[in-house]
Amino acid sequence: MKITEVKVIVTCPGRNYVLVKIMTDEPGIYGVGDGTLSGSELAVAADLEHLSQLIIGMDPSNIEDIWQKVYHCTYWRGGPVFMSALSAIDLALWDIKGKVAGLPVYQLLGGQSRDDVWVYTHAHGRDPQEVEEHVRSFHEKGFKFVRAQLTGGYGGYGGPGMLKRVPSGREGIPDTDYFSPEKYLIETPKMFEHLRNALGMEVNLLHDVHEQLTPNEASRLAKSLEPYRLFYMEDPLRPENKESFEMVRRSSTTSIAMGELFTSRWDCLPLFMKQLIDFIRFAPIHIGGITEAKKIMAMAEPFQIRSAFHGAADIGPIGQAAAIHIDYAIPNFGVQEWITFHPSTYEVMPGACQLEDGMVKLPQKPGLGLDIDEELAAKYPYQRAYMPIVRRVDGTYHVY
Amino acid sequence: MKITEVKVIVTCPGRNYVLVKIMTDEPGIYGVGDGTLSGSELAVAADLEHLSQLIIGMDPSNIEDIWQKVYHCTYWRGGPVFMSALSAIDLALWDIKGKVAGLPVYQLLGGQSRDDVWVYTHAHGRDPQEVEEHVRSFHEKGFKFVRAQLTGGYGGYGGPGMLKRVPSGREGIPDTDYFSPEKYLIETPKMFEHLRNALGMEVNLLHDVHEQLTPNEASRLAKSLEPYRLFYMEDPLRPENKESFEMVRRSSTTSIAMGELFTSRWDCLPLFMKQLIDFIRFAPIHIGGITEAKKIMAMAEPFQIRSAFHGAADIGPIGQAAAIHIDYAIPNFGVQEWITFHPSTYEVMPGACQLEDGMVKLPQKPGLGLDIDEELAAKYPYQRAYMPIVRRVDGTYHVY
Amino acid sequence: MKITEVKVIVTCPGRNYVLVKIMTDEPGIYGVGDGTLSGSELAVAADLEHLSQLIIGMDPSNIEDIWQKVYHCTYWRGGPVFMSALSAIDLALWDIKGKVAGLPVYQLLGGQSRDDVWVYTHAHGRDPQEVEEHVRSFHEKGFKFVRAQLTGGYGGYGGPGMLKRVPSGREGIPDTDYFSPEKYLIETPKMFEHLRNALGMEVNLLHDVHEQLTPNEASRLAKSLEPYRLFYMEDPLRPENKESFEMVRRSSTTSIAMGELFTSRWDCLPLFMKQLIDFIRFAPIHIGGITEAKKIMAMAEPFQIRSAFHGAADIGPIGQAAAIHIDYAIPNFGVQEWITFHPSTYEVMPGACQLEDGMVKLPQKPGLGLDIDEELAAKYPYQRAYMPIVRRVDGTYHVY
Amino acid sequence: MKITEVKVIVTCPGRNYVLVKIMTDEPGIYGVGDGTLSGSELAVAADLEHLSQLIIGMDPSNIEDIWQKVYHCTYWRGGPVFMSALSAIDLALWDIKGKVAGLPVYQLLGGQSRDDVWVYTHAHGRDPQEVEEHVRSFHEKGFKFVRAQLTGGYGGYGGPGMLKRVPSGREGIPDTDYFSPEKYLIETPKMFEHLRNALGMEVNLLHDVHEQLTPNEASRLAKSLEPYRLFYMEDPLRPENKESFEMVRRSSTTSIAMGELFTSRWDCLPLFMKQLIDFIRFAPIHIGGITEAKKIMAMAEPFQIRSAFHGAADIGPIGQAAAIHIDYAIPNFGVQEWITFHPSTYEVMPGACQLEDGMVKLPQKPGLGLDIDEELAAKYPYQRAYMPIVRRVDGTYHVY
Repeated sequence: MKITEVKVIVTCPGRNYVLVKIMTDEPGIYGVGDGTLSGSELAVAADLEHLSQLIIGMDPSNIEDIWQKVYHCTYWRGGPVFMSALSAIDLALWDIKGKVAGLPVYQLLGGQSRDDVWVYTHAHGRDPQEVEEHVRSFHEKGFKFVRAQLTGGYGGYGGPGMLKRVPSGREGIPDTDYFSPEKYLIETPKMFEHLRNALGMEVNLLHDVHEQLTPNEASRLAKSLEPYRLFYMEDPLRPENKESFEMVRRSSTTSIAMGELFTSRWDCLPLFMKQLIDFIRFAPIHIGGITEAKKIMAMAEPFQIRSAFHGAADIGPIGQAAAIHIDYAIPNFGVQEWITFHPSTYEVMPGACQLEDGMVKLPQKPGLGLDIDEELAAKYPYQRAYMPIVRRVDGTYHVY
Repeated sequence: MKITEVKVIVTCPGRNYVLVKIMTDEPGIYGVGDGTLSGSELAVAADLEHLSQLIIGMDPSNIEDIWQKVYHCTYWRGGPVFMSALSAIDLALWDIKGKVAGLPVYQLLGGQSRDDVWVYTHAHGRDPQEVEEHVRSFHEKGFKFVRAQLTGGYGGYGGPGMLKRVPSGREGIPDTDYFSPEKYLIETPKMFEHLRNALGMEVNLLHDVHEQLTPNEASRLAKSLEPYRLFYMEDPLRPENKESFEMVRRSSTTSIAMGELFTSRWDCLPLFMKQLIDFIRFAPIHIGGITEAKKIMAMAEPFQIRSAFHGAADIGPIGQAAAIHIDYAIPNFGVQEWITFHPSTYEVMPGACQLEDGMVKLPQKPGLGLDIDEELAAKYPYQRAYMPIVRRVDGTYHVY
Repeated sequence: MKITEVKVIVTCPGRNYVLVKIMTDEPGIYGVGDGTLSGSELAVAADLEHLSQLIIGMDPSNIEDIWQKVYHCTYWRGGPVFMSALSAIDLALWDIKGKVAGLPVYQLLGGQSRDDVWVYTHAHGRDPQEVEEHVRSFHEKGFKFVRAQLTGGYGGYGGPGMLKRVPSGREGIPDTDYFSPEKYLIETPKMFEHLRNALGMEVNLLHDVHEQLTPNEASRLAKSLEPYRLFYMEDPLRPENKESFEMVRRSSTTSIAMGELFTSRWDCLPLFMKQLIDFIRFAPIHIGGITEAKKIMAMAEPFQIRSAFHGAADIGPIGQAAAIHIDYAIPNFGVQEWITFHPSTYEVMPGACQLEDGMVKLPQKPGLGLDIDEELAAKYPYQRAYMPIVRRVDGTYHVY
Repeated sequence: MKITEVKVIVTCPGRNYVLVKIMTDEPGIYGVGDGTLSGSELAVAADLEHLSQLIIGMDPSNIEDIWQKVYHCTYWRGGPVFMSALSAIDLALWDIKGKVAGLPVYQLLGGQSRDDVWVYTHAHGRDPQEVEEHVRSFHEKGFKFVRAQLTGGYGGYGGPGMLKRVPSGREGIPDTDYFSPEKYLIETPKMFEHLRNALGMEVNLLHDVHEQLTPNEASRLAKSLEPYRLFYMEDPLRPENKESFEMVRRSSTTSIAMGELFTSRWDCLPLFMKQLIDFIRFAPIHIGGITEAKKIMAMAEPFQIRSAFHGAADIGPIGQAAAIHIDYAIPNFGVQEWITFHPSTYEVMPGACQLEDGMVKLPQKPGLGLDIDEELAAKYPYQRAYMPIVRRVDGTYHVY
């Protein structure tokens, strides 16, 4: 069995996705993968074009060997662009192996370890009352875990004196959000005090800091949220300096999740070895694919750290499925982030995982279970897009 | 003053380079930058196209603010592809600032800190005698620092039982080198024993391990090379696990240089803070440009760590010039890696730094001192290229 | 270009200042610097006279080289007197470089990184009510950050049982203040409770401990102030023993600023590397000038530590301007201490930075933007002055 | 008893010295002190003038209280200039106390702890043979400890390819020495190999690195000198980064002495607490006087660290005597550096300690035992003087 072609597909059915389709000389056997990286889609695609030549002619069965070859081939390895490309290839190879075996991928990863994969979703509002209503609406739909945020820009706070978003006024150029850590640290605990008073202590509430605080600010937040017993406080600090987590850890018993910006086992290991977090949040499609995600979750086991894979709209249905297969198989699953895609996305990538009562149904088809409709994908060409720029109130770029 | 356009230029005058030309509304004022990253040239170019839109309309004087904005704008920051793109922009902004001030860039970085910038070059041979002759030929040309390697593939050893290179047999697909750490560890000290016997103790010899060894193997090499007093042993270990360097450090007093694969201050800091290395080897165009290189060298100062910037053929003349300007300005310069480019490269990027008697002449023109001949560049389109694949003798991919 | 003369000017237009004016052979090009160190003005001036001879004839462009030469030239390097002298020279050299380039100094440091530089000022009062009124009066003038202290001597508390100041009774000899840490630790939290009740949680309040406490006392204060969310608690411990900060850090999430007594990167680094503080408070004119301040702020960046440069009346307008130029340029600015000088001071050093609505206006002129009126300076000769002596209530010298 | 006057005397009988004479209202009772700091003599004198006013009227018996008052009075405390001034005062106060008690100072420090205080002196030469002859000549004079150096500038090496000193060509402006660590590391072990072959293993040999190496270079030197069993290797690293000593310590069993540039207990403590050195080398007149030196030697005791006080020509006879009194009194004396002064120096400061057979005779007179001839001192006015500038061979300032 040989790889005959690697198709790189960039498509925008509501949002940009970078996909691969690895073809083989086995009739009907091909694999699909997802290497979407917001803002760097075309860079990932360029890397995929380059890496593809290296693996054409290889036996797609040798996933580990291909992984190592690709990882080392450009000398400057690693980083989000490159690891997303490698992940896309890895997913497609596991999809192929599943089809060859006639088994869903989770079966190849050790089989089913739980009945259900529970997910969390995103509630928000301009004030605590609105957030409460949004949380309630999710509960009614069966969600057991809800992330609660005040609106007001990415990482914003949304309190009464909410800071404005300033439009760029130029087509295609991002607006500027203004962020005040001081106000955020005042308003967020107030919101959770309201939610706990309104909803009681038993519902699973989460909160995402989006890496925007300093270690001492994050410590203050963790400490002030301690009475409201979050399921976890998410991504409190920027991803680079792992030692900062020691300060946060010491400040309270609030559970900590981290890692949606991680792109390497080397990001995870220092947090594992000192047990500085409770949940690890990388996306399998940014960390090196199923092969690498499986290994990292093995490294997490001895430290009693569980998964909470990133699953926002910047991960497509194929990447989502890869996460779900791992979620079902590993012993140390925690919770899965969940988002509903744009309807066109489901059409371009048919076979996406399905949610029922706040839980993802067990995938049934061989491989990852999804396909790519290439003709339809071609109808949604790439559209350049940016996230808002975040500045502090004095105009300083919000460096975190 | 405003940025009006960012031209992204990929050209292959003998080798692929990724360049930018940042235009302003000030007549005649523009800046040039280099973001070349071997094997990911088109990915860097794609990232540059994306990032460019963000900075058009901004004042090019505000280099630090632009750096922070670009660094954070895609959320998943860092990694070789992204940092090379950011570096190219940063170089062009310093080029602009130099032209506005009417001063060479090194003047903006604190002025001239030494008379000469000394370089090292690469000698190799199939046996110690051949290496000796190559070293001598460089000494005759005035080089004061020479790196000595046995040939035989990337990081190979080339001893009597030299392993073969196996051709891929397919156009554009890389050959496979076979590497044996055991033989390498036997042959390399023999070569240096020969060189010291033939050349004496006073000549400055270096050796590059190309990150191919385990910590214990690298320790063994450092210890067995100790009597031959290398100016330094280069890049002994893979870049990820900084703690491995403690073992190497403890094993001998051989000087250690590290970092040509580094793309972030976070790679450098752990090695600095424990003084695990003597020289830091990143390329300014992979680490975040002049702005970041200058900061990292400031961080290195208290730990008595000096520079030995990467300067192989994978860095173009503009990236080389950026390194030289920093080399002249910082107090903790060590040595500069040097390569002569393909003649066409000098034509496409006129104004390159010049070598004389093993030393780089002080740049004289405002800014970085180079230009890009866009028309000529267009005549050398990008050509896909790969490095050889490296396996161990049992066929295992040589994971390092 | 050559340095032709270094004029050392000691003047007392309301307060003693030590200034330099470095002349060059370029017509009209000279630089001004500030090396004021309260109580050691004549010692700094003597060191400046000594160091001047070394740099006459050198090219003022080579700031880094001159810095290193001066730093090492007396063998016993470092310490407040010597570093203030070196700083004065460094400031003048940057002033010259700015004039040569035709750019304000902040442009040479990387350009403008924020719209505004926000400052904090000093409110005090004999009881919480008086402090509140003083804070309000500053708010009305546009100040967004106010430091709040009870009066009663340097670092005093001023509560109901306020300790007396005992006059020395001798002309020119300092009075004695009596300080009780116990009373201070009782009264200070009461004051902040009053201020928060009166002013709400959103105003930015600071408090200065003036290094007067033991680690455990400072920990107690940090913990008891935690509910009042200071923007930061300033200089809690003496400068020497960096490890003491670990105890304070562990005790609460109160933000910590430190460093107005620091005169070396070696004071800063241990606090940075363990993230024991949130803001670094050295004065650029005591730490080695703009060159060294820029480097140290680069070292602070990876640890998310921001600036809060010392700017009391013991720093003159030229030293203040140096701080402001850095404040505008660096990515990790926090807040700037601000003081209004005696009217004569503004006449002796025309061109001082201007405040508007609690923010410093962006400097516009090339270099630092100030001059020294030598004739006028000569009319204000040096006047010996002392700070009060501080004893504990049993007569023990208050050793801290 | 009251201090009535503090005379500050700067004199140059062969070399510059900064002296104090503290007068009291007790007829005939006054004390002398030494605060000489090469290159900053006038700065120390200026600080002394300032500090003097503070102590006039105080009882000179209260040495500890005066020490604390002076130490804290200028707010920015510490550093070589300030600590030298404080030391001078402290010495004079101990001289007074000795005179009041009618006892030599060592008696007040606990009495005589040894029969003899052994010293080491300085041998040097242009090649190993010359050094050997110089060492022999000292042995013949009774010296039991000799420091051996190759000449060739401060910290130079003096081997066959000795680097030249380049004259400044300008009156009063220092020459430039060129230093090559590489050559120094080659030649120094060769010299000691020669000395040990010629003189045997039993003579006590020392070597001074003058802080000129990096940690790894110093480690290499310590390792290569290990076979020659130095009494100690002196001042291997610059004074600031105490952690660097761990690397040197790990590399060999060569004894390490450190500290002639130390001006504070905070410099000593980290080296003591980790037992990174064997001998502590501060000068009592730079560290805070007899009061502070006695305390630091008490801190050294539990770590089995002994004294080797700095005693080059930059310490005058009064400072030398202070060291000798401590040497006789403390249990953990090691060795004393010794120099013979210019004949005029002995006239200006009559009563200097005397050497006999490589040992200092026990001081007999009350107090320190010396006086200052003020009239004679006035005949030798201060003469500005500089040390040579040290650069590396590429023109870089030799930063260490």
